[in-house]
Amino acid sequence: MNDRDRKPRFPRGPGNGPANSRETGRDRGHQPRRTTGDGAAILYGWHTVAAALANPARTIRKLYLTENAARRLADDKIDTRIAPLIVAPREIDQMLGPDAVHQGLLAEADPLEGPALDELTQDGIVLVLDQITDPHNVGAILRSAAAFAVKAIITTARHSPEATGVLAKAASGALELVPIVTVPNLARAMSELNDLGFLTVGLDSEGSETLDAVPLRQPLALVLGAEGSGLRRLTRDSCGVVARLDMPGAIKSLNVSNAAVLALYIGASKLGLMR
Amino acid sequence: MNDRDRKPRFPRGPGNGPANSRETGRDRGHQPRRTTGDGAAILYGWHTVAAALANPARTIRKLYLTENAARRLADDKIDTRIAPLIVAPREIDQMLGPDAVHQGLLAEADPLEGPALDELTQDGIVLVLDQITDPHNVGAILRSAAAFAVKAIITTARHSPEATGVLAKAASGALELVPIVTVPNLARAMSELNDLGFLTVGLDSEGSETLDAVPLRQPLALVLGAEGSGLRRLTRDSCGVVARLDMPGAIKSLNVSNAAVLALYIGASKLGLMR
Repeated sequence: MNDRDRKPRFPRGPGNGPANSRETGRDRGHQPRRTTGDGAAILYGWHTVAAALANPARTIRKLYLTENAARRLADDKIDTRIAPLIVAPREIDQMLGPDAVHQGLLAEADPLEGPALDELTQDGIVLVLDQITDPHNVGAILRSAAAFAVKAIITTARHSPEATGVLAKAASGALELVPIVTVPNLARAMSELNDLGFLTVGLDSEGSETLDAVPLRQPLALVLGAEGSGLRRLTRDSCGVVARLDMPGAIKSLNVSNAAVLALYIGASKLGLMR
Repeated sequence: MNDRDRKPRFPRGPGNGPANSRETGRDRGHQPRRTTGDGAAILYGWHTVAAALANPARTIRKLYLTENAARRLADDKIDTRIAPLIVAPREIDQMLGPDAVHQGLLAEADPLEGPALDELTQDGIVLVLDQITDPHNVGAILRSAAAFAVKAIITTARHSPEATGVLAKAASGALELVPIVTVPNLARAMSELNDLGFLTVGLDSEGSETLDAVPLRQPLALVLGAEGSGLRRLTRDSCGVVARLDMPGAIKSLNVSNAAVLALYIGASKLGLMR
């Protein structure tokens, strides 16, 4: 049980919180929730903000830069798109709290629209996250997903962190690269993936065979549960295959983002997607 | 640059801090620094405390348990070794701060003694960490090291987090399983590893070949640098081989604990250590 349950630094807004997303039903399920109380996604740090500025689909509302950061963007010929507010580093510290390594860049942006499940292409790999709540872990998983050219991440509206703040920082720009499909009900989404032709493979220490040994094919959905609790029963029951990752040492489970990158490497290697 | 530079929650004591470890010279280099101001390692959370109680080499000074946690230890027939202090959950909250997921268990313990470099066995894999500062990342790396039966982790006294608090929690019991060798000077330690017969392989995005393609042998030392800055020049120059991890996606670097687990999987697989 190592999926750190930190509170998100940015409060969920009344219309954007997970409780409400659920109440508004299926049609709101694909709306990403990457927002502050006023609906903005908070993006900070060099890679995160530079990637947002480079993404034409991302609308930047406000951009706070230190003089150094503004000079570095200019040196790297990165267009800020809107006029930045030049501030002292401690002004950004005050907005984010002392723990945030912002490197002099803070953007408030519109959240990105995610695709619908049936808009996904019928190739490659998608990741399904079942109630992984820690924003550092989800951010690191997004970053690995971008590194392995994952087509989308599918997650529930409830019990998952918003695509803002700590998650966006840990994703290191990957929020701009990997579409997030937010669904109201994961078991139903799994069933839809099966109907769409995906091979759905759940990762679970009690899996009957190792991921190495499973005959994989595209499109592939790799399904990961939270540390400690693992896949929920309904999620597990909706998987075409349940596989485990075998390791030779005394500890038999990995941090969830470590398990995710290993599953991606094994999956991409077996599918010939590593080049 | 995603290696989050959080301040350690527990202050470094005057005799245990990194600056002093350096001044006291080589002989103190193998002393682990996993201490609070009064020299105790702070261990919390179920896996972390249960593993410490199961480790006869770990001296427990004080043990705070909630009633529920005490009952759970008794149910699992885990010997507490010393008489626990039964407390309310919020008393542990107050000791650790609101972010710590302690699950009702907090132990103050003696730090563990690490071995010397020349006491390492001449087989398997060791990990060398070059100024990886984030305790969550180092904790996750320790956990993966235990999962892949890594023989030891080698790290510097300075610029690395202490084996306590957040790091111990993220390691999920692995602190009791993986010896930590703390050295005053990493380049000198690398040179000693080379002399001892280790194949030293640095991981770096500018590596001349992929880790997959490097002919590996035991004993193997995998060397990882901090995100952003990577391996320092002297560390890199001391490596027998510098290799990269290739990935097919738009982002070319992983979170450092994700890179570590991938390198361990590739290394252990190629060396036939996966069973």
